[in-house]
Amino acid sequence: MAQRRGRPGYDQDSLLAVVVEVFNERGYDGTSMEDLSARLGISKSAIYHHVSGKEELLRLSVGRALDALFAVLDEPQAVSGRAIDRLEHVVRRSCEVLVKELPFVTLLLRVRGNTAAERAALARRREFDRIVTDLVRLGEEEGDIRRDVDPALTARLLFGMVNSLSEWYRPDRGLAAQDVADALAKIAFKGLTESRDPTVTGA
Amino acid sequence: MAQRRGRPGYDQDSLLAVVVEVFNERGYDGTSMEDLSARLGISKSAIYHHVSGKEELLRLSVGRALDALFAVLDEPQAVSGRAIDRLEHVVRRSCEVLVKELPFVTLLLRVRGNTAAERAALARRREFDRIVTDLVRLGEEEGDIRRDVDPALTARLLFGMVNSLSEWYRPDRGLAAQDVADALAKIAFKGLTESRDPTVTGA
Repeated sequence: MAQRRGRPGYDQDSLLAVVVEVFNERGYDGTSMEDLSARLGISKSAIYHHVSGKEELLRLSVGRALDALFAVLDEPQAVSGRAIDRLEHVVRRSCEVLVKELPFVTLLLRVRGNTAAERAALARRREFDRIVTDLVRLGEEEGDIRRDVDPALTARLLFGMVNSLSEWYRPDRGLAAQDVADALAKIAFKGLTESRDPTVTGA
Repeated sequence: MAQRRGRPGYDQDSLLAVVVEVFNERGYDGTSMEDLSARLGISKSAIYHHVSGKEELLRLSVGRALDALFAVLDEPQAVSGRAIDRLEHVVRRSCEVLVKELPFVTLLLRVRGNTAAERAALARRREFDRIVTDLVRLGEEEGDIRRDVDPALTARLLFGMVNSLSEWYRPDRGLAAQDVADALAKIAFKGLTESRDPTVTGA
């Protein structure tokens, strides 16, 4: 109703929701301001009213994913208790962030580092990985996590599973974030063969 | 020595090795025959001597990855024995294929389906996923795999871990395919917390 002359009215969130779609479809490098203008249905100068240019749109988009992921690391269950439980919390909540912010995390995971905004995003991803690796290492020291795999490799494989959601998760197929998080936590922490354990009765 | 007039001489393998690099750097859609001609150091007509065009180059490149992955499914250890052991064999060997054919599998995993060649590749990926899902289901029926996760979801998460190699594995960092396969199999099949099991002694 606040739209004038038939133009869509955008705030930053609704602008980014469209922009991230175009980035994911065409790739960041393959997207021009003209492409964004056409999809948004507003002029390039109207986009420049919101942001300084394409790179700021990337920074804001991947920033939304990174902020959500880093917020998980500050949650009470991620900062106190045994490392194994903190790690499981981080993994489960990261699954939920991927589902909630799927296009933004998908864009983040495809960033390759050609611009300053991309290199900054990659640096924050490495920082996240380092924190997860430290949790794995602490879990080993506390005797809760198997010591026969390098912590950095464990962290990568664990988040390989989490990040794969960006490839196959579709919000319209009735699988809730919680279901994915439960399945992933069972496989990663207990293993596929847990049912072989004679102390566990089959479902 | 067989090169004439200073032109590099390519056979199909050496041609594809360069082409797949360019596709991975620029994206398939973002790569023109001019880009390929420039990188290969041969004319476009020289490329057409090898193939009918860009789409055939994609078909051959992803075909190399798919053929290697499907060959794993036909290996003796993938076709006889208990499903859990067949599944572990497929997972381990897929890790090895990813390491050996890294740029080709990376390209395959990025295919989105805009052309006939891409749609054909996606169809073969789905066929691979279906075969892995069937192995998981059979492993559940044989009582070796936990029954509290949907087999298709288990297959996706398992190969989420495997496919993540295309994101972080670097051949020059001294981590052998076998090391990755061992770590992945331990985490996926036994779980991160196996050391909690009192019947297992720590390493």
